[in-house]
Amino acid sequence: MLFHVRMDVRLPHDLAPERADELKQVERARAQELQRQGKWRHLWRIAGHYANVSIFDVADAQELHDLLSTLPLFPFMEITVTALCRHPSSIHADER
Amino acid sequence: MLFHVRMDVRLPHDLAPERADELKQVERARAQELQRQGKWRHLWRIAGHYANVSIFDVADAQELHDLLSTLPLFPFMEITVTALCRHPSSIHADER
Amino acid sequence: MLFHVRMDVRLPHDLAPERADELKQVERARAQELQRQGKWRHLWRIAGHYANVSIFDVADAQELHDLLSTLPLFPFMEITVTALCRHPSSIHADER
Amino acid sequence: MLFHVRMDVRLPHDLAPERADELKQVERARAQELQRQGKWRHLWRIAGHYANVSIFDVADAQELHDLLSTLPLFPFMEITVTALCRHPSSIHADER
Amino acid sequence: MLFHVRMDVRLPHDLAPERADELKQVERARAQELQRQGKWRHLWRIAGHYANVSIFDVADAQELHDLLSTLPLFPFMEITVTALCRHPSSIHADER
Amino acid sequence: MLFHVRMDVRLPHDLAPERADELKQVERARAQELQRQGKWRHLWRIAGHYANVSIFDVADAQELHDLLSTLPLFPFMEITVTALCRHPSSIHADER
Amino acid sequence: MLFHVRMDVRLPHDLAPERADELKQVERARAQELQRQGKWRHLWRIAGHYANVSIFDVADAQELHDLLSTLPLFPFMEITVTALCRHPSSIHADER
Amino acid sequence: MLFHVRMDVRLPHDLAPERADELKQVERARAQELQRQGKWRHLWRIAGHYANVSIFDVADAQELHDLLSTLPLFPFMEITVTALCRHPSSIHADER
Amino acid sequence: MLFHVRMDVRLPHDLAPERADELKQVERARAQELQRQGKWRHLWRIAGHYANVSIFDVADAQELHDLLSTLPLFPFMEITVTALCRHPSSIHADER
Amino acid sequence: MLFHVRMDVRLPHDLAPERADELKQVERARAQELQRQGKWRHLWRIAGHYANVSIFDVADAQELHDLLSTLPLFPFMEITVTALCRHPSSIHADER
Repeated sequence: MLFHVRMDVRLPHDLAPERADELKQVERARAQELQRQGKWRHLWRIAGHYANVSIFDVADAQELHDLLSTLPLFPFMEITVTALCRHPSSIHADER
Repeated sequence: MLFHVRMDVRLPHDLAPERADELKQVERARAQELQRQGKWRHLWRIAGHYANVSIFDVADAQELHDLLSTLPLFPFMEITVTALCRHPSSIHADER
Repeated sequence: MLFHVRMDVRLPHDLAPERADELKQVERARAQELQRQGKWRHLWRIAGHYANVSIFDVADAQELHDLLSTLPLFPFMEITVTALCRHPSSIHADER
Repeated sequence: MLFHVRMDVRLPHDLAPERADELKQVERARAQELQRQGKWRHLWRIAGHYANVSIFDVADAQELHDLLSTLPLFPFMEITVTALCRHPSSIHADER
Repeated sequence: MLFHVRMDVRLPHDLAPERADELKQVERARAQELQRQGKWRHLWRIAGHYANVSIFDVADAQELHDLLSTLPLFPFMEITVTALCRHPSSIHADER
Repeated sequence: MLFHVRMDVRLPHDLAPERADELKQVERARAQELQRQGKWRHLWRIAGHYANVSIFDVADAQELHDLLSTLPLFPFMEITVTALCRHPSSIHADER
Repeated sequence: MLFHVRMDVRLPHDLAPERADELKQVERARAQELQRQGKWRHLWRIAGHYANVSIFDVADAQELHDLLSTLPLFPFMEITVTALCRHPSSIHADER
Repeated sequence: MLFHVRMDVRLPHDLAPERADELKQVERARAQELQRQGKWRHLWRIAGHYANVSIFDVADAQELHDLLSTLPLFPFMEITVTALCRHPSSIHADER
Repeated sequence: MLFHVRMDVRLPHDLAPERADELKQVERARAQELQRQGKWRHLWRIAGHYANVSIFDVADAQELHDLLSTLPLFPFMEITVTALCRHPSSIHADER
Repeated sequence: MLFHVRMDVRLPHDLAPERADELKQVERARAQELQRQGKWRHLWRIAGHYANVSIFDVADAQELHDLLSTLPLFPFMEITVTALCRHPSSIHADER
């Protein structure tokens, strides 16, 4: 199942820089691992924002929640989840 | 350049059904043509809404506007445009 | 998969009363059929509103969309969809 | 009487982790006790959020307030309360 | 149980004046009857608005919904319902 | 003159508990004194919120402001003020 | 007592022009009469909008409502009312 | 003085096409005349919207209002006005 | 030129009381000086809020910005600026 | 390509003044350098706000993001990005 997810990161300005760097590094490794597994299907930066638009391809909402809530930056993100399905005019078979 | 576009269709309830059907048919043909050209790269339905989330791959904002504003349903759509760029953690070369 | 859905009905005031009654009657029959099938698991009225809060138990977002978009009142409803999953503190096995 | 309640938890990032853990543990025990008593009838996680959607079955708004305001995480939650009643199309006797 | 209700009336400008007058007359008679029964406990006009703030004293949300949804102007009102309970600092016994 | 006032209390989580208790105790005493004087005519808790809905009966907006702005919790409250007047359908003489 | 009032006029596009002109003419006469009486103390146009910002000097909210609700354009205006009082730093005696 | 203006055009779907065309033609002529006079200094289309962002260079808010309120499409536009002034980091003399 | 300005003051709760008092004292002196100069033409308190509504009479937006941005409380205020002009129905010559 | 950008700066009140001054100084130098390069084409202050409206002329959204996200005040700014294109009524060749 496909989910459209927008994540806006809001790091508190008094978070120690080393802690922030560490979080970002682990976040990045995790994001790339999930992309390689095909679960985090698309990942774009929103121009001008510390934010991304993503498409997840997961078994269900449970798997989505488990992936998102264990991201290192989860406590600092405002997240919007939108459930997607096939558009009758789509010509791509994998846009379910 | 990639743009994230959300389109919510709001047909007036007193629009003649034949007119609505005609608009939808032309819209569909146009959407599929643009997908085949690679300009309308992704197209998903938002579950529970007469709406879609799309990714456009166009030369610039001018081309995007020309494509969107000539869609048959344009006068009846609420559109949100978001400019995308490459996310540093993306592993896919075409997610510019 | 469980989805939380809120539907607010907004009938245009110039809709013919017979047409409105007909739509409501078919809507009701369809809602009860889906409840008997176990797909529309819960259905509550929101006090003071021509609106409901519902829980759907469906295979995925596609099935949800197919059910919602074929409801007779769909063109007159403002719908909000929220994907649910299991809460770690829930004691009920069917609250997936 | 049934109430629909959404709770969004917002823990301050400088709350001591042990204090947070303690609060969550007591919250969980209390939530399960109330579920066993039948007062907290349903409890779902909202996918991608540190939030839940719940249905409470209580004598009145007073009992609801007493239950919610004594939850350990109450000071850190944004809460939305919606009063429910029977939907004329419901087929379930306990959806009052 | 007490409910706080705000009602904003929005009559379509093309509603026939006689129909509007008739609706208002029946609404007024109904409102006064419910006040005499003690169910519509308070009723105030909001200065500058075609709107009111009311306090209802009813058995439960079901009775509230039955009263509100049968008001003649119900189809033309935007309604906000808020469940009340006793404030620990209140000195009035009937402010439950 | 009657004013409808909603007060939402937002205590900073790092406010010393003794300071918070002291503020609440003085607030309570002040609220009860104003109720006995007939100036704070009604006071209800909003179920599920650290908030109240109140009706003030004061000479004018100046007296209202003087009362509200000297409440101990004033710096921590989000306040909404709505001016009321007589509703033509009210049957109660004191609902001016 | 002083009230700050913002009025945004929204004339339906299918209102007959003669009817609109007539309403505006009567509105203007009434506004000027109230200004001469000192009740409509200030009246400014908001640049770029069919809207005004006004200060009313009336006995109470009742008089304000009676003035506003009998304006010919009242049914077509979105109105916001804000109760004013004396600012401790004001040097003008009539800014009560 | 410079003003930043955003105009969103919302033509009613039942406006006669010839009337709409006529309005647009006159609007265009007027917009170009004002640009040539230097009063409508900049004019950009917002991609994906029937809307523009403009910079006006006028004597004051009165002149701005006179220009905007006499545009043929004024009754069909939602307008947002923002007053600009010189930014201390600007290197362009005419960005007052 | 006239500008309508609303200022909502939000002092951080951990600001030292002496610092707050000092800021308010200087703010008050400055506000009264500007009133005597005729630049801060009106100043009202909004009942129930630590906020004011003001009318400024200045040469242009530049002078307005210079006045507002040098107020001692500027860093702690949420400010809304609205450009005013003459209302065709105004009878007061100085309501330009 | 042209982008319309609004930046609202929100400096935390407990940021050390020297640190704030340093950030502003570097920000200013960078802003002027980008203006000289023609990439930051316009820059205006919004009257009454610690905010600006800007027009950027860049190759694409990627370049815009790289410029914005490396501004010293980026972590403290709320940014809104709007993609522009040529308006059919514009008479200026560089308003693409």
